Amino acid sequence: MRPSGRTAGQIRPISFTRQFTAHAEGSVLVEFGNTKVLCTASVEEGVPRFMKGQGKGWITAEYGMLPRATHTRNDREAARGKQSGRTMEIQRLIGRALRAAVDLSILGENTITFDCDVIQADGGTRTAAITGACVALVDALNHMRSKGLIKTNPLKYMVAAVSVGVYKGEAIADLEYVEDSAADTDMNVVMTETGKLIEIQGTAEAEPFSFDEMQNMLELARHAIREIIDEQKKVLA
Amino acid sequence: MRPSGRTAGQIRPISFTRQFTAHAEGSVLVEFGNTKVLCTASVEEGVPRFMKGQGKGWITAEYGMLPRATHTRNDREAARGKQSGRTMEIQRLIGRALRAAVDLSILGENTITFDCDVIQADGGTRTAAITGACVALVDALNHMRSKGLIKTNPLKYMVAAVSVGVYKGEAIADLEYVEDSAADTDMNVVMTETGKLIEIQGTAEAEPFSFDEMQNMLELARHAIREIIDEQKKVLA
Amino acid sequence: MRPSGRTAGQIRPISFTRQFTAHAEGSVLVEFGNTKVLCTASVEEGVPRFMKGQGKGWITAEYGMLPRATHTRNDREAARGKQSGRTMEIQRLIGRALRAAVDLSILGENTITFDCDVIQADGGTRTAAITGACVALVDALNHMRSKGLIKTNPLKYMVAAVSVGVYKGEAIADLEYVEDSAADTDMNVVMTETGKLIEIQGTAEAEPFSFDEMQNMLELARHAIREIIDEQKKVLA
Amino acid sequence: MRPSGRTAGQIRPISFTRQFTAHAEGSVLVEFGNTKVLCTASVEEGVPRFMKGQGKGWITAEYGMLPRATHTRNDREAARGKQSGRTMEIQRLIGRALRAAVDLSILGENTITFDCDVIQADGGTRTAAITGACVALVDALNHMRSKGLIKTNPLKYMVAAVSVGVYKGEAIADLEYVEDSAADTDMNVVMTETGKLIEIQGTAEAEPFSFDEMQNMLELARHAIREIIDEQKKVLA
Amino acid sequence: MRPSGRTAGQIRPISFTRQFTAHAEGSVLVEFGNTKVLCTASVEEGVPRFMKGQGKGWITAEYGMLPRATHTRNDREAARGKQSGRTMEIQRLIGRALRAAVDLSILGENTITFDCDVIQADGGTRTAAITGACVALVDALNHMRSKGLIKTNPLKYMVAAVSVGVYKGEAIADLEYVEDSAADTDMNVVMTETGKLIEIQGTAEAEPFSFDEMQNMLELARHAIREIIDEQKKVLA
Amino acid sequence: MRPSGRTAGQIRPISFTRQFTAHAEGSVLVEFGNTKVLCTASVEEGVPRFMKGQGKGWITAEYGMLPRATHTRNDREAARGKQSGRTMEIQRLIGRALRAAVDLSILGENTITFDCDVIQADGGTRTAAITGACVALVDALNHMRSKGLIKTNPLKYMVAAVSVGVYKGEAIADLEYVEDSAADTDMNVVMTETGKLIEIQGTAEAEPFSFDEMQNMLELARHAIREIIDEQKKVLA
Repeated sequence: MRPSGRTAGQIRPISFTRQFTAHAEGSVLVEFGNTKVLCTASVEEGVPRFMKGQGKGWITAEYGMLPRATHTRNDREAARGKQSGRTMEIQRLIGRALRAAVDLSILGENTITFDCDVIQADGGTRTAAITGACVALVDALNHMRSKGLIKTNPLKYMVAAVSVGVYKGEAIADLEYVEDSAADTDMNVVMTETGKLIEIQGTAEAEPFSFDEMQNMLELARHAIREIIDEQKKVLA
Repeated sequence: MRPSGRTAGQIRPISFTRQFTAHAEGSVLVEFGNTKVLCTASVEEGVPRFMKGQGKGWITAEYGMLPRATHTRNDREAARGKQSGRTMEIQRLIGRALRAAVDLSILGENTITFDCDVIQADGGTRTAAITGACVALVDALNHMRSKGLIKTNPLKYMVAAVSVGVYKGEAIADLEYVEDSAADTDMNVVMTETGKLIEIQGTAEAEPFSFDEMQNMLELARHAIREIIDEQKKVLA
Repeated sequence: MRPSGRTAGQIRPISFTRQFTAHAEGSVLVEFGNTKVLCTASVEEGVPRFMKGQGKGWITAEYGMLPRATHTRNDREAARGKQSGRTMEIQRLIGRALRAAVDLSILGENTITFDCDVIQADGGTRTAAITGACVALVDALNHMRSKGLIKTNPLKYMVAAVSVGVYKGEAIADLEYVEDSAADTDMNVVMTETGKLIEIQGTAEAEPFSFDEMQNMLELARHAIREIIDEQKKVLA
Repeated sequence: MRPSGRTAGQIRPISFTRQFTAHAEGSVLVEFGNTKVLCTASVEEGVPRFMKGQGKGWITAEYGMLPRATHTRNDREAARGKQSGRTMEIQRLIGRALRAAVDLSILGENTITFDCDVIQADGGTRTAAITGACVALVDALNHMRSKGLIKTNPLKYMVAAVSVGVYKGEAIADLEYVEDSAADTDMNVVMTETGKLIEIQGTAEAEPFSFDEMQNMLELARHAIREIIDEQKKVLA
Repeated sequence: MRPSGRTAGQIRPISFTRQFTAHAEGSVLVEFGNTKVLCTASVEEGVPRFMKGQGKGWITAEYGMLPRATHTRNDREAARGKQSGRTMEIQRLIGRALRAAVDLSILGENTITFDCDVIQADGGTRTAAITGACVALVDALNHMRSKGLIKTNPLKYMVAAVSVGVYKGEAIADLEYVEDSAADTDMNVVMTETGKLIEIQGTAEAEPFSFDEMQNMLELARHAIREIIDEQKKVLA
Repeated sequence: MRPSGRTAGQIRPISFTRQFTAHAEGSVLVEFGNTKVLCTASVEEGVPRFMKGQGKGWITAEYGMLPRATHTRNDREAARGKQSGRTMEIQRLIGRALRAAVDLSILGENTITFDCDVIQADGGTRTAAITGACVALVDALNHMRSKGLIKTNPLKYMVAAVSVGVYKGEAIADLEYVEDSAADTDMNVVMTETGKLIEIQGTAEAEPFSFDEMQNMLELARHAIREIIDEQKKVLA
């Protein structure tokens, strides 16, 4: 049924290339099939003004898409002079997901900024970004420990994300672009390695969805994320 | 347990004032307790460029908060020269929810723009906005039929929304500000009168939430929205 | 002669609703007929950088119009990314008028920010805004005294404003929209309760106006403002 | 009493240099004492969208101040990315004043854009700008007639402007910077050669002003503008 | 003398990866040592308004740097809301260089947009961008011929670029970051395969440079570009 | 051959009017034929944040063109809300050239800001700006010495600039607009009075240029700049 021949719950091949670039404290190219996102983690001492004096750290994220990551070229946001609502929505989501993974008190007054830049898009860029950023987070935290910036590991649990949806009446996991653009419902799920939810965002694209459909999607997401977190751990081992 | 003495699933008193202002084709002041949002629907002939020539209509929404709708004054977005990510996220959500309620083919090449401006904020402004805008939508569609802009009613079903959350370890419905700011999880649910889901957005504010907690929140949302849609219908009767 | 049947010098019914919203130190909905403006006064300790260290306070104002306050929808300034020249002009006028009413030395290093948001427009929004803001100012100053932020009352005199114009060859007071859009001349006058002028702005819309016409307009303004200030005092009594 | 030794009603030496620059259809350097403003009039065929199809012309104005036209350097507005409220207010005033001088029906579907750029500031830049722009307007209209763009002269009357104020308790005309910054009241008056008013904008800087003071200022303005219009005519003769 | 042990005229290892991404008509990852730039060419039918109706094509370029392409993180230009002067300068340079390589009349009314995004920076990003973009140009032109958009090849000659400089008193070619930041002079040279100059931009960073130094730098650039063009041709063969 | 009848190397008449405006520490109107640029130097104590605490001064420049300095009116950059790439490129060039002329250590923690505003354009505005700004620099430095802000003269050497190009196949100096718009190559050269190069920027407008053509252009530039620096010294004597 799926254009790729995948089964409903089958995710695409996933890969993580650590140290993809040289300068960042964490730098991971994450691939979900043809979706490729470069996730870098930049560590800076100090925190933004609104966090000062609390003895806690801060984590934030920015998201971008290279203009020709997609089938047709999109305007460059830097040239248009503002980020789209979609971009803002996504980078806020990434930031929340990564903050949930870390005990900010242990992080100390340091800031980690994630840059998730889509090199090539084929559906699921935001969930790939969260998944790749979490691997970059581990590298950045290791860097911080080796530099003495932190003493203990502030990571609470690995987090990963996947998109699920209802496509031709059936729940499927890890939608690629052709599926995504034809799906009735699109849902992004972020979970911890402990099997709990950090974020769930489901949208009826065409028709509203039933509670049953939602349960099916969630079930697929739960399994997919378990697999994805296994891959994260393998590459970090 | 709740500051207001409400039970876990109890929503605040809701009211809708139709024709709150004189000029808009639909104009509704919606109140969820102390949260007050003015929702206007403006009908214009024609559609944006990307919709032209398809014989279909368009629905979009903008959201704003008066600078002193909140406890402390927020910067005016018009003066800062840009809308915040939060604002963009909310107005995109409102637009999607209202579009889902309407058969755009029947709407014809007309545009309805919703302006949801928060006069006073006490939690749940985005869900109140969706709920009030749907009442303004009905008024605007009636106006269009009386003017002969449309022949049949493009409304597919009423939509309404509510926020639910986990507060002090328990699922509750329709959070007010003091609950919202202390909640572990915050979830916004948009549903149709047919009991289906249009949008679900759940976020772990502090701790990740379990699938069970999600089910409990959803159950509260389902009941609350049924009540809210009853109120919408009463005021429109 | 006037569409409403009013006499040349007759103003519309005026009302002030104090504490229209809950959070602001002063919050007044002012109505001049169908023109409705919400004026809030927000008190913050401290002053902007250019006023620091002088032991004096600061008063400033921002003005906005809800997109559908008017017959046809206007673009939302926050979405366009800038305030129009008209908006800037009006908020500068409001700020000057309110500063004139207060002895800034007695105010101490505190700032009062007025937000004047037009809920519904039918001519004279800027003069209504000044008039309503002055009532909100009194409430805010009372709040400051009750909190011990100031010891004595810095109010020098009540201020109020009205628009006058030449319509069908005759001077009239308090123009509503249909008069305003057909007027030859439009003049906004801000005065104190002591009968002195704070601001006068007269513009020939179509034909230049004579000194005699200006005298007539001023005479109407003087009477109208006296009445308006009586209303302000009544509601504050 | 005045720093310059001028009498209360005495204006500064005024000069107009026509064809100050080579390219514009009208180009006038106007000097009021040490205030120097370059006013160019640019003629373009066609009108802005909102004027199309009415068979009428359009006149608009932009105002700028070179960063070091003043005692201390001001930020360049092009670098800051927006025009100040003051700039917007002034350029709107200039535009209205010039539009009042011209019968737009006779102008045909042509646009004249005035650029008023302050080379050196010593008070009264906006009134100098209006006064100089009117001379540039005459040159531009002559150019249009010689090119056959218009057949008859659309100029209704010359317009000119002056600032008046209350300084040390006395009404004076044509304030220079040191007077302006110490004045109690500042009023800008725009009049026609027929002795009628186009615009009057009076502001109490420190203390409110009485009706008598306003009459005195207006009387000075009336005389000053008569003199200024004589100078305009002399240079155009 | 050079940190890398290279001789004065020796360039870094260069590589081109064609079809680095899937969607663009030309997509080349160019590497000059550790400098890595992704250059995509996007073909669109039609030309910008200012080129319409001339029967000629248009070529333009945009440049960006991923925030963490460098040692320390740079602000994301899309988030800041504007491109820096440096970015503008570079993308204008790239556009001019590519336009020089193409006969725009043969290109027809089509537009090729180059996006040059720096994945990792180690000096010479703008010259690498030009060099890589020219390879992407060839791929895009081949694509256009295969689609019948053009009949004959509009390429006039390959172009390539290199940076040269004066470092520790000696002219060197292809500066890496540590050399660049310590160089007295920095010069970017763009040439054709026919050995002619398209652009030369030399800047004294610390001390002015002599005509002799310039000749030495130019000589190195001439040799380096010859080598680079050989590499371009090899990868395209 | 040249429209003006000038010989290939002949520059236009040059003039400098010092103290062209009253307020700036240096204020020079420079004219290269019909190109007229007002260059002001503004001295402020302190340096930008990125220079603090190094005991060194800072020099920066901004460039603007009055909207009607050219044959047809250009949009005002302040109204459009951003500076063009061309403007940014030019003001960065001016800043670098002036910084090269000064020993920033001797300047102390002071900032000199140059504003170069083109009153009338006829080719070569950026080179005229550099040339005029250097005269304004000398005046500003003298002002600083007279005020005791600096003890010794930080000027290392006079700098000046000229444009050269290939026009109808021949190298010429100091191009005016009609030559510039028809030139095959356009090159801007900035040099010191010691005959060394500070900046060279050559661009093939139509056809690439040979090394020989570049030598010819450079030779003309060298002679022209020598003459221009003689003029600078004459006016400063």
